[in-house]
Amino acid sequence: MNYYAAPVRDLRFVLEELLEHRSLALPGFEEASPDLVEAVLEEAAKLAGDVWGPLNASGDQQGCRRQEDGRVISPEGFKNAYQAYVEGGWNGIGVSEELGGQGLPEVVASSVQEMLHGANMALGLCPMLTAGAIEALAHHGSDELKTVYLPKLVEGTWTGTMNLTEPQAGSDLSKVRTRAVPQDDGKTYRLSGQKIFITWGEHECAENIVHLVLARKPDAPEGNKGISLFLVPKFLVNDDGSLGERNDVVCASIEHKLGIHGSPTCTLSFGEKEGAIGYLVGEEGRGLNHMFTMMNEARHKVGIQGIGVAERACQHATAYALDRVQGKARGSECTISHHLDVKRMLLSMRSRTDALRALALYCAAQLDIARRSDDADERRVAQARADVLIPVIKSFSTDQAVDIASLGIQVHGGMGYVEETGAAQLLRDARIAPIYEGTNGIQALDLAGRKLQRDGGKALSALLDDVDATAQSLSSTAALATLGKSLAAGAQDLRDTMKLLLEQGMNPETGPDAVQAYATPFLNLAGHVLCAWQMGESALKAQAALDGGSDDPFYTAKKLSAEYALSQWLPVGRAQRAVIEAGMETLSEFDATP
Amino acid sequence: MNYYAAPVRDLRFVLEELLEHRSLALPGFEEASPDLVEAVLEEAAKLAGDVWGPLNASGDQQGCRRQEDGRVISPEGFKNAYQAYVEGGWNGIGVSEELGGQGLPEVVASSVQEMLHGANMALGLCPMLTAGAIEALAHHGSDELKTVYLPKLVEGTWTGTMNLTEPQAGSDLSKVRTRAVPQDDGKTYRLSGQKIFITWGEHECAENIVHLVLARKPDAPEGNKGISLFLVPKFLVNDDGSLGERNDVVCASIEHKLGIHGSPTCTLSFGEKEGAIGYLVGEEGRGLNHMFTMMNEARHKVGIQGIGVAERACQHATAYALDRVQGKARGSECTISHHLDVKRMLLSMRSRTDALRALALYCAAQLDIARRSDDADERRVAQARADVLIPVIKSFSTDQAVDIASLGIQVHGGMGYVEETGAAQLLRDARIAPIYEGTNGIQALDLAGRKLQRDGGKALSALLDDVDATAQSLSSTAALATLGKSLAAGAQDLRDTMKLLLEQGMNPETGPDAVQAYATPFLNLAGHVLCAWQMGESALKAQAALDGGSDDPFYTAKKLSAEYALSQWLPVGRAQRAVIEAGMETLSEFDATP
Repeated sequence: MNYYAAPVRDLRFVLEELLEHRSLALPGFEEASPDLVEAVLEEAAKLAGDVWGPLNASGDQQGCRRQEDGRVISPEGFKNAYQAYVEGGWNGIGVSEELGGQGLPEVVASSVQEMLHGANMALGLCPMLTAGAIEALAHHGSDELKTVYLPKLVEGTWTGTMNLTEPQAGSDLSKVRTRAVPQDDGKTYRLSGQKIFITWGEHECAENIVHLVLARKPDAPEGNKGISLFLVPKFLVNDDGSLGERNDVVCASIEHKLGIHGSPTCTLSFGEKEGAIGYLVGEEGRGLNHMFTMMNEARHKVGIQGIGVAERACQHATAYALDRVQGKARGSECTISHHLDVKRMLLSMRSRTDALRALALYCAAQLDIARRSDDADERRVAQARADVLIPVIKSFSTDQAVDIASLGIQVHGGMGYVEETGAAQLLRDARIAPIYEGTNGIQALDLAGRKLQRDGGKALSALLDDVDATAQSLSSTAALATLGKSLAAGAQDLRDTMKLLLEQGMNPETGPDAVQAYATPFLNLAGHVLCAWQMGESALKAQAALDGGSDDPFYTAKKLSAEYALSQWLPVGRAQRAVIEAGMETLSEFDATP
Repeated sequence: MNYYAAPVRDLRFVLEELLEHRSLALPGFEEASPDLVEAVLEEAAKLAGDVWGPLNASGDQQGCRRQEDGRVISPEGFKNAYQAYVEGGWNGIGVSEELGGQGLPEVVASSVQEMLHGANMALGLCPMLTAGAIEALAHHGSDELKTVYLPKLVEGTWTGTMNLTEPQAGSDLSKVRTRAVPQDDGKTYRLSGQKIFITWGEHECAENIVHLVLARKPDAPEGNKGISLFLVPKFLVNDDGSLGERNDVVCASIEHKLGIHGSPTCTLSFGEKEGAIGYLVGEEGRGLNHMFTMMNEARHKVGIQGIGVAERACQHATAYALDRVQGKARGSECTISHHLDVKRMLLSMRSRTDALRALALYCAAQLDIARRSDDADERRVAQARADVLIPVIKSFSTDQAVDIASLGIQVHGGMGYVEETGAAQLLRDARIAPIYEGTNGIQALDLAGRKLQRDGGKALSALLDDVDATAQSLSSTAALATLGKSLAAGAQDLRDTMKLLLEQGMNPETGPDAVQAYATPFLNLAGHVLCAWQMGESALKAQAALDGGSDDPFYTAKKLSAEYALSQWLPVGRAQRAVIEAGMETLSEFDATP
């Protein structure tokens, strides 16, 4: 029962029918035809379903093991599965051709990524981190660094890591203490310090590991402006590109975590001997900014990850419910999938997963425009939309994924609590996603603070205009009119609370507090409304197909999924308006001291 | 940081100020003075904090081990901790004096139980199951069975189990197949069959284990009416009360579970040799009814369990937030407890835990009246209230506990995901509670179906009259008027949806479907409204204390907790009205088949 079948049809519905393959019309994607995309999805589905998926449970059970010499052994089969991924050329699918990738649109790369994370989230993290390293190097690395490191990273024969966190520096990275001492050669630095929570920080699935490390020069000022970004390879690279000596960075320990056991979370010690050799990436003192370039997209990827796990939880629970005979419906014995209360759980899981996927891929399409459009205005507008959407996608998708995985356990009854079923692993795995790449609280502050305040809500307002247009279309379609009303009301709630947040946020007295106090309910409301918007679009497409005479049950299912989202899920989100309107006095007065 | 301090002050607030120690005025509780209750709570707090609590993490790490001969070894220290509990006389505190207990009110027993579960849920399960066995025997056992088994169970030197589930018989117990063959002696039966998910089904913390087992006689009819209840001791008992031969019941395996690792969940094989000797409890064919006697109260206890874990999660997260320095408030470095977004998480956890506790203890007080009042009408009314409240308390408390424990992880950031912190264990442990003792879906059906339909909503309406009275009192207290308005609106939602559910439920065509479709959102709404009611009462008491000149920060905290519940938590629950009013068409049409 513990299997995963990549949801190709659902992904194609979003790419082809909701997004109408608009990314393919952008400059640079001329060769990516709909047929090619379909073939890519089908091939990725095989890798996910046949190679990565079957290792999900065993990877969880075995976990990673650190040897005394600091080497880290991945679960059985992971190295081969990763090699199959590299050999299939999957690591470069979203990377531009100039950098050696296949240059496919982000919507396609994101679709593939969802499948791989659904199949095996722990293994999926490895290339996810590499993608961040590619991004950072491509944007900020010197030509020399790019020449040496990028091709290998794009291939995936080397992997990347992000070394940010230190024990005293988590959400507040200004506290980073790792030191980078410039060497006399004028080119290299020697790094020393300890980084924690480094995902795939040490492993043997790839030949080399490229660590991107936040550190300070000895004379650097305190705070953010003293932080620079350095590249520290596990093995130094000789002039001919071959691997040289082992650098002075070692895995001191790995964490015993709630989930993603197949992904080694390492404490890395830099410079226990003479100092780890590193190279400056980008400008001195701009390390945090450079890191944020890659973090924005990494956050989108974490959202996608949540969706992958949510999809797997849906499949898992559905398979169980279709198999488990218990109780009666209309007098006869039946599988539990016939009980309306179980249907509620399954439809709630399915509907939310559909909605989150549609929103995340909508955002990917905006990223495509932002990168590729030949119209500068269009690029700017799309980037602004993506900037607003990304914290929502990271945070809302992952919170929902945790809840969906938990509901998946519930569908299984007692069997859900037994580890061998596999349902529990999905909750354990999903639970990290609201935490890493910036906690969901940090995402909410990013949305309600920086993203909303810097343009006075312009980008979100523009999105809301589109939401209203969808509501209009629904309202003028007889069979969907109720949904239109529901969506319009949700959009109004979001507009009104946005206004409140902008007014209070701009007040120099109360601004920072208002942002802090309302950020989480505001993001939650935004997530519900924007997801409902995408489900409104889905309903329109499904209804059109049905009206056009289709008898494909896929469209009936999509319509029911959309109906659920708009009429039974959105109302719960809309309650966040009341939460915000309750004010911040109670929170301000609350003192946690017992 | 992984500690537990029993919340004596909070429990006393509920017992003394909200419930005004009314249970103590009931016949039979004459000796239970407020001073005695206080002393009991303080002593229980020591057992919980000093003896049980410190074993929570190690018990989780070590888990239980089954030996090849079927013996099950508990985690280190559990046997001694259980012995300390027995020696302190804790097992009998809620059991009537006639049965050898201390005969303290249920409100006190429930308070003690919350502490023990908060300290160590896995260990707490052992006596929880014993309590069920005592209940079933006391109500339905023959005098002979009672004489032999009750004293030992009440002491706790023997423990009890409930053997219900079989692979094909979970939520639907009518499918039970275990056989009980009457023997020629006219007294005993030989049982054979397999039971799964038997909590503390085998262990060596006590001298003997008394299994209560649902089984069928060979000539019994199919379905519910063929099921009888049997008592099957692990060791047979000689005429002089000493332990005799090992009975033919053996632990075939234990489950590898998501949490409660310290509690062995056993598959028990009855009758692998000549058949396990058992004794009929109560009437033939009435096994399910007899089991339900004890299940009703067991469900209340599971709700309490959720509250215990929620309390521990609050303490855990609060301690971390008060310790962890990160970021700034008003320009200076601060612990994260000063960030409003973190305050929101902490207050949300605290407020919900307070509310759930108050409601569960209110229900315990109703159970006290139902058992002890000398007025038959009063007893009937109180029992009817408890009957309505119990599914809400079981289900709502445990769902909330899972969410509270998950939020507790979030407060810890990355540290929450690392097992050594202990935050993750609370989520893993809590996750079973919505499943066992009847899944939360089954509880919702019990509320919306049986409990609501059988009296046409009379008991719930009476509760709602009390809710309205509290709303009135709030509204006429200037400082609390907004809260009164909020509560009244919530009560109206619950009344209106109750009416809808009664109308549709009584329709012979749509009735069963309506109950199935609306049960879960209805229970969720009821949970929010009833919890908000108790928080309204808390606000009144706290306000009165503050108005009376108290400068105890405890009352300020209670008032803020109540404000949060009424203004920021209740609105989320009220959204369930819209969910119900969306109708059941979408669910009915949904077909889970992919």
